[in-house]
Amino acid sequence: MNSKKLLLTLLLSAILPSICWAQAVERVEPPSWWVGMKSPTLQLLVHGEQIAALSPKLTRNYPGVSLQGFTRLGNPNYLVLDLLITAKARAGSLPLQFSAPGKPTLKLDYLLQARTPGAALAQGFGPKDAIYLLVPDRFAKAVPQAKDSSLDGEDRANSNARHGGNIEGLRQHLDYIADLGFTQLWPTPLVENKGAHSYHGYAATDFYRIDPRFGSNSDYQQLVREAKARGIGMIQDIVLNHIGDKHWWMADLPANDWLNQGPAYSETHHARATLQDPHAAPSDRKRFSEGWFVPGMPDLNQRNPVLANYLTQMSIWWVEYAGLSGIRADTYSYSDKAFLATWSQRLMQEYPRLNIVGEEWSPHPAFVAYWQRGRQNHDGYVSHMPSMMDFPLHGALLAGLGESDGHDSGLTKLYEALAHDFLYPAPNNLVLFEGNHDTPRLFTALKQDPALYKMALVYLASVNRIPQFYYGDELMLQSPLQRDDGAVRPDFPGGWAGDTVNAFTGDGLSEPQREAQAFTRKLFNWRKTAEVVHSGRLMQYAPENGCYVFFRYGEKQRLMVVLNKSAQPVRLDTRRFAEMLTPQSSGIEVLTGTHQALGRELSVPARSALLLELAPEAVALPK
Amino acid sequence: MNSKKLLLTLLLSAILPSICWAQAVERVEPPSWWVGMKSPTLQLLVHGEQIAALSPKLTRNYPGVSLQGFTRLGNPNYLVLDLLITAKARAGSLPLQFSAPGKPTLKLDYLLQARTPGAALAQGFGPKDAIYLLVPDRFAKAVPQAKDSSLDGEDRANSNARHGGNIEGLRQHLDYIADLGFTQLWPTPLVENKGAHSYHGYAATDFYRIDPRFGSNSDYQQLVREAKARGIGMIQDIVLNHIGDKHWWMADLPANDWLNQGPAYSETHHARATLQDPHAAPSDRKRFSEGWFVPGMPDLNQRNPVLANYLTQMSIWWVEYAGLSGIRADTYSYSDKAFLATWSQRLMQEYPRLNIVGEEWSPHPAFVAYWQRGRQNHDGYVSHMPSMMDFPLHGALLAGLGESDGHDSGLTKLYEALAHDFLYPAPNNLVLFEGNHDTPRLFTALKQDPALYKMALVYLASVNRIPQFYYGDELMLQSPLQRDDGAVRPDFPGGWAGDTVNAFTGDGLSEPQREAQAFTRKLFNWRKTAEVVHSGRLMQYAPENGCYVFFRYGEKQRLMVVLNKSAQPVRLDTRRFAEMLTPQSSGIEVLTGTHQALGRELSVPARSALLLELAPEAVALPK
Repeated sequence: MNSKKLLLTLLLSAILPSICWAQAVERVEPPSWWVGMKSPTLQLLVHGEQIAALSPKLTRNYPGVSLQGFTRLGNPNYLVLDLLITAKARAGSLPLQFSAPGKPTLKLDYLLQARTPGAALAQGFGPKDAIYLLVPDRFAKAVPQAKDSSLDGEDRANSNARHGGNIEGLRQHLDYIADLGFTQLWPTPLVENKGAHSYHGYAATDFYRIDPRFGSNSDYQQLVREAKARGIGMIQDIVLNHIGDKHWWMADLPANDWLNQGPAYSETHHARATLQDPHAAPSDRKRFSEGWFVPGMPDLNQRNPVLANYLTQMSIWWVEYAGLSGIRADTYSYSDKAFLATWSQRLMQEYPRLNIVGEEWSPHPAFVAYWQRGRQNHDGYVSHMPSMMDFPLHGALLAGLGESDGHDSGLTKLYEALAHDFLYPAPNNLVLFEGNHDTPRLFTALKQDPALYKMALVYLASVNRIPQFYYGDELMLQSPLQRDDGAVRPDFPGGWAGDTVNAFTGDGLSEPQREAQAFTRKLFNWRKTAEVVHSGRLMQYAPENGCYVFFRYGEKQRLMVVLNKSAQPVRLDTRRFAEMLTPQSSGIEVLTGTHQALGRELSVPARSALLLELAPEAVALPK
Repeated sequence: MNSKKLLLTLLLSAILPSICWAQAVERVEPPSWWVGMKSPTLQLLVHGEQIAALSPKLTRNYPGVSLQGFTRLGNPNYLVLDLLITAKARAGSLPLQFSAPGKPTLKLDYLLQARTPGAALAQGFGPKDAIYLLVPDRFAKAVPQAKDSSLDGEDRANSNARHGGNIEGLRQHLDYIADLGFTQLWPTPLVENKGAHSYHGYAATDFYRIDPRFGSNSDYQQLVREAKARGIGMIQDIVLNHIGDKHWWMADLPANDWLNQGPAYSETHHARATLQDPHAAPSDRKRFSEGWFVPGMPDLNQRNPVLANYLTQMSIWWVEYAGLSGIRADTYSYSDKAFLATWSQRLMQEYPRLNIVGEEWSPHPAFVAYWQRGRQNHDGYVSHMPSMMDFPLHGALLAGLGESDGHDSGLTKLYEALAHDFLYPAPNNLVLFEGNHDTPRLFTALKQDPALYKMALVYLASVNRIPQFYYGDELMLQSPLQRDDGAVRPDFPGGWAGDTVNAFTGDGLSEPQREAQAFTRKLFNWRKTAEVVHSGRLMQYAPENGCYVFFRYGEKQRLMVVLNKSAQPVRLDTRRFAEMLTPQSSGIEVLTGTHQALGRELSVPARSALLLELAPEAVALPK
């Protein structure tokens, strides 16, 4: 707050002593905290009318906790308190008070909780996992549902409106997800999104509150607990870049510089290359980061240190509060770059085994790799992100299977995309997806071809990545090829009372859908214990005659993966794979369960995938 | 040579003393050398029947030169001599003799020449230059032409046969090339290529002899001298990877291991990614490097140290003999990777200001960058190549102009390709081409659209690369889109007596062709003195509304480049370019010569390119 505004505020508060004084602290965020965190600092954002005219203090000694100072913002209705919580502090209620001569005194008992044992070192998602992404509003609706008359209701006839899916609906179907073989759940954001069209959750109106239409905060905690009991971790989708225009801040903005471009609106040009491009105009970089997505999504200015800290604490809060196994960071690169470095660093310091996956929607490995922890960047930028979404390999997978093969097309693209792994410090910690809530459905992208669809899933489940699956793709759901958000996020069959098709029970599914569902179930259940996929190395061979072969290998296990796109059966000369096979090799084909002796030739049926777990044998493994 | 073979050779030479002894040394390579080279070592490959039974020596003291030793190869008809030529040595004739008890003595006077003053530090081609690539057999034929009855003749009716273009024809038209504004000439290889279909020169049959159908070695020297007199440097196209099957070695192979796979043939799979791919199967890497292109192009095994050294000396020989300004290394990555490092290192040590451009036909910047000198590679590979052909940017240029614009298509591709410059240690020393002898013609690739064609040339001439132009593209020549070598290498109009169209005089050209030729001439003549293009930095702005803007800037000069693909005129708000412009900016449009005041808006006609040299003004340049 600059001194002129402060003076004005103080003058006004002298002139208008009895008007509009808060009766209480209206809101404090984070709403609670924990003792025993690695970082001893905590910054509270306190909201209350004219609260900036008051001074905060601890009303009595609280061992291990001290109020280090406080800051006023541009808006007199906010105060920011800096607390130090040392290792000595015990859980309890921290007695805070806000007062000034001649003003009513406000009291705040702030909750400091004990941590769940092991929370600091909880294992995040990783290469052993397979992630199931779903849109909670579109997955399953359990009744009765909580009502909040201040929030828009449902309209299932409108693909861009709320459809009523909720946490309880999701909770009731955790068994279905576990049964499919998935070990992580990524729901699109569950926090409050006022407004009819933010069913997707990417326009937060309260960072700390689960949207009542989904359920309560404790419903969410229960969901995480019950998922964990089924071997499923929870990945929370967090948006750092923007908020919804109905966010409570918008009615009483803490300071103008919490938003990029203040009240003015101009759109980002989405030119993410500006961040890496040595030739980018500085104004273009600024426009990328500071432009808004749409008028309804005010863009946050994370260069404001209080806001930056707010977002970091908010992320830590959810990890601790819910017991997350990871975070998916939406529109990652759109936030301030320096902030992102600090944000990811602080999270990883607090939770060294957590995983965080960022969204950088680019087809270029060099751009995505820029963000992964450990990369030596040309401009000295140091990121701490353990994982990123592998958009380049996703694109290459669709092109590899969907295009005809050539010098630079089809399987060559897929093969060469993987050859770019040298750009990544840890390729096996990237998340490869077959589709998500923003892309056309896999089955559609692959021309409604069940053979290509299966090859894509086999690749997803066996390559050196963390696989992410999109709800409904086990049913070969379709969508338009052109972007159509509502259509690509349909109601899951069986999630609503009265649905004529029920994918949970199988009722009404077509035979190909049943088969696809069973295929998915088989594949990802197999992957759960396929150690060679979790931690083995990869060796690939250049595609030939529409056929692509790679191996995963470790000390004890070896897996051969064959994708044959060709309309002809292919006889592979096993001598080509001498690093991995001998003529005596044999194995079990995972999908069919059949035993296969390889000999000098391996027959691969036309348009099929093989997944051969090889029997241990005496081939010296390459170093 | 292993000891058993040596023993056998010696036994045979004892048993058959009087049969088939050489009367003379049949061949020695390099055919001559120089005193005063930086590297004092020289290895002579001496060929003569049963010469391995003889021992070489210097018949008298030659100050500064000593014979350090010699080596026998697998074939008794070869000897390899190791000479040391110190700084003391003077030019002259080195008296060598080959003898053994009871054998005829052979003599060889080996020529050591004085170097041309300044040869060691001659400036190679660089960012100030523009390169004109032509296929000498297809450019111009001067009569009378040398005859050699051992070589196949011409057949102009066959697009895959010799057409008779020669050095003298090329020499006579150097003024045309200079007049177009080009300062470097890259002819496809001129060395001897026996056989009817190697008009292109990529199947050498003698590394040290200009093909007599093109002319003599001294004709070539004269060509280089006369080109230099017109400000044109010579870039020699050298093939390290393979030879033609009619190469003289093939009748009397120095050793089986001079060829990859010995006498067996199997084709390379062209999977160049194996070289960078951390996942590549070792056998796949081997297959890439050691597989042959075609049965008619035996693949050289540069892991043989004598052959490796032979190829390096041969390359140095041509630089020195002809006074080259650079080398274009064909099928670069197909040769042995370790050899390539040594080869490029030795050339650059000998000629620190030389330039060498390698061909790595990949759309991926990370693969091409791998080869450029100064790159810190993931696998520790150290290359010494100053330049590479910029295939990725070439592809992006065609896509950028030829595709419609989208999130990942059209101009976005071009813009993002340039953003990858951070992968290259020296992007401005890469060679960007609008086309070459292996790609479809530019005008065809851009849908026969003269507006797109002009934009491509403007980009080529103004971006931070060394531009390379392909002969005939100044006439908007066309070709099939599918690869058709003969069709993309047509006879240049006017190069043959009786041609009805003559591009040298302009006779018979269509009006659009005349215009294109004049456009090319204007553009590249302008570029010759456009210092800001040679050495200025680059700043680019994300494309918008089909319009792409970048600047080149230096201490004194600033150039604005606008490519407007849109079917609509575009009014650019000059405030967007505040780093480079003020509302008071004005400039001269290079192509039209008109003065242009910019003001708040700059109008760019539909489907056009602007090239504005801005007047000096008081905008602080970005650091």
